[in-house]
Amino acid sequence: MPAPAVILRPRPHWVHLLFVRRGSLVPRILSQQLFIFALSCAVVLLHGQLFHWKVTLTAAPFSLMGVAFAIFLGFRINASYDRYWEARKLWGAVLVEARNLARQALNLATPSTTQREFVLGLVGFATAMRNQLRARPRDTDLAGLLPMDLVERVRTARFGPALILLWLGEWLRTRRDAGELDAIAAQQMEQSLNELSGALGGCERIANTPLPFTYSVILHRSAYFYCMLLPFGLVDSIGIMTPLIVCFVSYTFFALEALSDEIDDPFGTMPNDLALDALVAGIDASLREMLGETPPPAPVPDANYLLT
Amino acid sequence: MPAPAVILRPRPHWVHLLFVRRGSLVPRILSQQLFIFALSCAVVLLHGQLFHWKVTLTAAPFSLMGVAFAIFLGFRINASYDRYWEARKLWGAVLVEARNLARQALNLATPSTTQREFVLGLVGFATAMRNQLRARPRDTDLAGLLPMDLVERVRTARFGPALILLWLGEWLRTRRDAGELDAIAAQQMEQSLNELSGALGGCERIANTPLPFTYSVILHRSAYFYCMLLPFGLVDSIGIMTPLIVCFVSYTFFALEALSDEIDDPFGTMPNDLALDALVAGIDASLREMLGETPPPAPVPDANYLLT
Amino acid sequence: MPAPAVILRPRPHWVHLLFVRRGSLVPRILSQQLFIFALSCAVVLLHGQLFHWKVTLTAAPFSLMGVAFAIFLGFRINASYDRYWEARKLWGAVLVEARNLARQALNLATPSTTQREFVLGLVGFATAMRNQLRARPRDTDLAGLLPMDLVERVRTARFGPALILLWLGEWLRTRRDAGELDAIAAQQMEQSLNELSGALGGCERIANTPLPFTYSVILHRSAYFYCMLLPFGLVDSIGIMTPLIVCFVSYTFFALEALSDEIDDPFGTMPNDLALDALVAGIDASLREMLGETPPPAPVPDANYLLT
Amino acid sequence: MPAPAVILRPRPHWVHLLFVRRGSLVPRILSQQLFIFALSCAVVLLHGQLFHWKVTLTAAPFSLMGVAFAIFLGFRINASYDRYWEARKLWGAVLVEARNLARQALNLATPSTTQREFVLGLVGFATAMRNQLRARPRDTDLAGLLPMDLVERVRTARFGPALILLWLGEWLRTRRDAGELDAIAAQQMEQSLNELSGALGGCERIANTPLPFTYSVILHRSAYFYCMLLPFGLVDSIGIMTPLIVCFVSYTFFALEALSDEIDDPFGTMPNDLALDALVAGIDASLREMLGETPPPAPVPDANYLLT
Amino acid sequence: MPAPAVILRPRPHWVHLLFVRRGSLVPRILSQQLFIFALSCAVVLLHGQLFHWKVTLTAAPFSLMGVAFAIFLGFRINASYDRYWEARKLWGAVLVEARNLARQALNLATPSTTQREFVLGLVGFATAMRNQLRARPRDTDLAGLLPMDLVERVRTARFGPALILLWLGEWLRTRRDAGELDAIAAQQMEQSLNELSGALGGCERIANTPLPFTYSVILHRSAYFYCMLLPFGLVDSIGIMTPLIVCFVSYTFFALEALSDEIDDPFGTMPNDLALDALVAGIDASLREMLGETPPPAPVPDANYLLT
Repeated sequence: MPAPAVILRPRPHWVHLLFVRRGSLVPRILSQQLFIFALSCAVVLLHGQLFHWKVTLTAAPFSLMGVAFAIFLGFRINASYDRYWEARKLWGAVLVEARNLARQALNLATPSTTQREFVLGLVGFATAMRNQLRARPRDTDLAGLLPMDLVERVRTARFGPALILLWLGEWLRTRRDAGELDAIAAQQMEQSLNELSGALGGCERIANTPLPFTYSVILHRSAYFYCMLLPFGLVDSIGIMTPLIVCFVSYTFFALEALSDEIDDPFGTMPNDLALDALVAGIDASLREMLGETPPPAPVPDANYLLT
Repeated sequence: MPAPAVILRPRPHWVHLLFVRRGSLVPRILSQQLFIFALSCAVVLLHGQLFHWKVTLTAAPFSLMGVAFAIFLGFRINASYDRYWEARKLWGAVLVEARNLARQALNLATPSTTQREFVLGLVGFATAMRNQLRARPRDTDLAGLLPMDLVERVRTARFGPALILLWLGEWLRTRRDAGELDAIAAQQMEQSLNELSGALGGCERIANTPLPFTYSVILHRSAYFYCMLLPFGLVDSIGIMTPLIVCFVSYTFFALEALSDEIDDPFGTMPNDLALDALVAGIDASLREMLGETPPPAPVPDANYLLT
Repeated sequence: MPAPAVILRPRPHWVHLLFVRRGSLVPRILSQQLFIFALSCAVVLLHGQLFHWKVTLTAAPFSLMGVAFAIFLGFRINASYDRYWEARKLWGAVLVEARNLARQALNLATPSTTQREFVLGLVGFATAMRNQLRARPRDTDLAGLLPMDLVERVRTARFGPALILLWLGEWLRTRRDAGELDAIAAQQMEQSLNELSGALGGCERIANTPLPFTYSVILHRSAYFYCMLLPFGLVDSIGIMTPLIVCFVSYTFFALEALSDEIDDPFGTMPNDLALDALVAGIDASLREMLGETPPPAPVPDANYLLT
Repeated sequence: MPAPAVILRPRPHWVHLLFVRRGSLVPRILSQQLFIFALSCAVVLLHGQLFHWKVTLTAAPFSLMGVAFAIFLGFRINASYDRYWEARKLWGAVLVEARNLARQALNLATPSTTQREFVLGLVGFATAMRNQLRARPRDTDLAGLLPMDLVERVRTARFGPALILLWLGEWLRTRRDAGELDAIAAQQMEQSLNELSGALGGCERIANTPLPFTYSVILHRSAYFYCMLLPFGLVDSIGIMTPLIVCFVSYTFFALEALSDEIDDPFGTMPNDLALDALVAGIDASLREMLGETPPPAPVPDANYLLT
Repeated sequence: MPAPAVILRPRPHWVHLLFVRRGSLVPRILSQQLFIFALSCAVVLLHGQLFHWKVTLTAAPFSLMGVAFAIFLGFRINASYDRYWEARKLWGAVLVEARNLARQALNLATPSTTQREFVLGLVGFATAMRNQLRARPRDTDLAGLLPMDLVERVRTARFGPALILLWLGEWLRTRRDAGELDAIAAQQMEQSLNELSGALGGCERIANTPLPFTYSVILHRSAYFYCMLLPFGLVDSIGIMTPLIVCFVSYTFFALEALSDEIDDPFGTMPNDLALDALVAGIDASLREMLGETPPPAPVPDANYLLT
């Protein structure tokens, strides 16, 4: 039996309290956290005094500011997740439309010897799209999927995947001219090429237009400033517990901010970004299976690995 | 008269206060709740002291942290529910497109003897899709719905339902070659196959890409830590009522977190997940009714059962 | 001049403060409200003591819990309203597609005597859809709209409206076979039948898959428990005003919860549910007007009535 | 050079602090505000006593209630704005599809003398749609755009714009029968008629199905009751500043509630509603420009005017 | 190797704390901030007295108002960002459909010498759309892309881009009349023209219908009034720290309000608005690459520049 396509992750809650082996944000926010912790300890030792001058802060304004900040951060997480999820949907559309085109090509009115070429070209499109989004050399992994002259054109082009769509369209025209494809089926396959074009354009949009930069900056500044002032506001009422509480608050704020910073650029290579390599491999496997070939087995998930 | 397709659930509000017979989360969160309860009682007995050292916490920081946490949890519930509801919509699309394809196949220009084969193949598609999403053996329940050689291919394939769509496309081509289907009607049925393909790809996407794991972990940690510190913050002001209030707060937080953990992976077999078996049975019944056959009666809803 | 199709509701704000004649939730929540009121009065009289034991609660934890609860309830209202509005959109789509099909049928290349039969069949579809969603006898109001043998099949079927779509598809085939309809126009009308099928499937989805039941239960329990404890928390600071404030808070929470409970099952017959009978009557009137017949006048809105 | 189609509004922030010349809500909420102000002053003068009995309220419960209310009001604003924006999108779709139909009609395979008649008929559709949504006499402004007998039918019909779509469909059939339009182009134009039909049905839906009335009522009652009790809660701590703060709070709540009440019925004639007359004029101008005629110049925006 | 199309921005967190070189809002809100700062200092110096009269305010009402305001502001940011993102999606659709049309034109059944003319006309459409949205002279940059007489018509028209679509439709008809394009492919290209028309109409909608003006005004007034009163509420408890905290709160509120004011009119030329010039240049480059020409190299991103 084949490896399952869907990997169910176990969720023993206590494990998550202490360990996270994938996508941990601790390395990213560790220096910020240590700074806040050291500051809190200093504030406790000095009883909230700076240079013999008592900083007169109470908890009241922090309650107000904290809730306001949480609301704005909540909206940002939402917007970042929307970007992440839209990007994932667009890659899902690439899989779906590649399958649709392959199905229709394999069921041509008059079967032709070049069907395999077309289907592999679809895999080439997905590969080139990944290369562009990840800013890799544009011809990575394309050899064997596309004709050599097309690979060469893609290698030097700014918008390579669009050229592959053009080539796929030429293939359709050739089939029509050869009488293997009627006008109506050709139109439907053109429609699927349009969908691939739409997924490509959508991913370019997400990659090229980040969240308004200023928004991130305002939130980042507010979080930092808030956590730096917080120990002065708490030290008079909770004393020695101040560093614990401040670190807890700053952990929640910094970690959520760092996470939304990672996922709002979902094509990067940070741990919480989209697993584009696995997605391209899945498209490759599914199309080869439709060609009647045996794809490589699904990757074995280990405990550290989520097939994103 | 047939059993109603729509089951209206009665909602006497007082019943829900004490009992819930389906989808209860209590077993999942019982151990967490007992731990928090025991901790609260210990804090009350010791008057907030650990090893003769008084933990100096007041309610103020908990108000801030609690509201911030509620906001983040609220966004998570929203995102989880969106995943659940999108999955349900995709299964709804499978029903709709299966009916559309059946309607068009049954109204072929030239009726053919293989129409029933095609309609049962649609049921087979839905069945195979459920098998893949639930990681069951891939050929479960497929016998009798699909030709034996296709069942065999699906059994060993990684992406079986896509192969069934390929076979349904071959059926269309055969009908066209036999002159029973004109090009335009065939195009429209291909379009419906594309929709089925889209529903399949969407479900694979939801199954393979969980919510960013780190987000769940941050929230889970924050909830736990918050509830463990809360008794220290409340014991000085509300004394012996501390365990009651702490358990109430932790119940709300833990239960909502557990629920969103269940529904953000909607294809599982936990009580609040989608009832995929009932959905496949509904598709089977509706298509057989269109074939003029008498489907099995609708399941009798008992008080414990909601036809999800 | 005909009665207006759009009823503008007057909104004198002070009227709403005291009276609401339609959709009032007071009957639903009256018993809960009275219980909370009596409990509050008892707490005031006993000065927060139960059996000579003082319940030591302050307002602080209620502020935290109340805001958290409001956030979760806010999300629930949002989700319920989305279900309600999606259901309304689907019924709007039934009207639109019925008009589109009628327009195209009435503009057939070769006019035929059976056009009226087809248009009335569309009204029959909407009627049968309402019957199924409201669990009425499946043939209610169908006589005169559909052929008798189809009415008989619908009466005993589990998924009657899907059978009517099948019959409408047969009508299209017959027209094509008779040369009254070309292939391309037929395809477009099939597309509109697909849209009707989609609206039907969407409504079945909303009717069969409630909001996760456990979510409602958690919120209902939390609201009840919160309102029962609230008087103990307030009595020390606001004394005799406690019942007033507690009733105000519990009214807001209980009423919003009851409303979202009503509208998340929008096909019921509670006052805030969708007015399916009026919607079906509107479809009937619009199609008959297109047939050149004079529909019954629009219902006269009285002050109690909103054409939902 | 023509007047710009896009009017950029200047936004000097300090102007908005004092003046708003368009869409002001002050007239609507003035009586409520004055009542609350007078009540606050009375409470200050009487030191919170009613008939020599001291009203024992503190600020604590108002903080809880105020935040809960803000959350619910926030959701309502969101829902109202969604209705407003969806209505605007539907009117945008009318413009887009009218242009598409005009473009295709003007590029007929065989140009015909009746193209102008068809294009003006599209303007007539938009005009009749506005008349229905605003409950104006149904034939307002239709003379000269549609044939007289059609105007007469629309005048007495309940669903006039649907009859105009029927007439536009007849025009298409006539062109096809005359050989000026091939089947495929006709299908695409029918598709655009379907889109117009969808925009019409969507607007009817928004006009006929308000937000659940009870929801507005609950919020309105809560706001009123809250603002009436607030002075009693604040007078002990902030004394003579009470009226100022209470008026500030009540202004925010009442104004936002009044605004969402205006925009959730976007087809009305209140200042913040959609400018349907300007939208119809824009459609008229754009289509006449495509006909090669010179439309009237764009309205000159004055400081009071936003081309909504 | 070509410059990368996707520019990954580095995110060293500490840099953002102090500097932002692009899209800074400080110039916009500086005068407001200085005013609030001066007011706070004055309040501290005068110990909260105005003309020897003590302003009796505490922090309590500010907590309530601040959270309510944050909720409303959060919804506004959300709505503004939705407008911004929808505008970006519409421009993404222009790129996608322009590529689709170019692909289909370049793969005509019978290649023709006028294909380049058509493809450059698509660039002209995007250019004219930018001119209209930015209220530039309507013929900016159009020379060389469109025939001179069309440029002349566009220059004096109110709705120029719609005229270019009409001209593109004429090109299609000419190709069909010349037998270079069959009816079905022409229909699909008409469909893509419809999509361009939809993107144009959507942008006109966003440009012409701002967020309800009153909503912005209410929020702006509330923010100002709130920040002006805040020092009086805080001075008694936090004394000399008042200006720091007040400036922090007012920075967050004013900056987020200014940002949402910028992005809810996304076609302006403020730093956070859409980079329409870069978008048009990208469309130009991608289409020329499909024509086999070498586009100008991608702009070199410097640290100050984000390719929005």
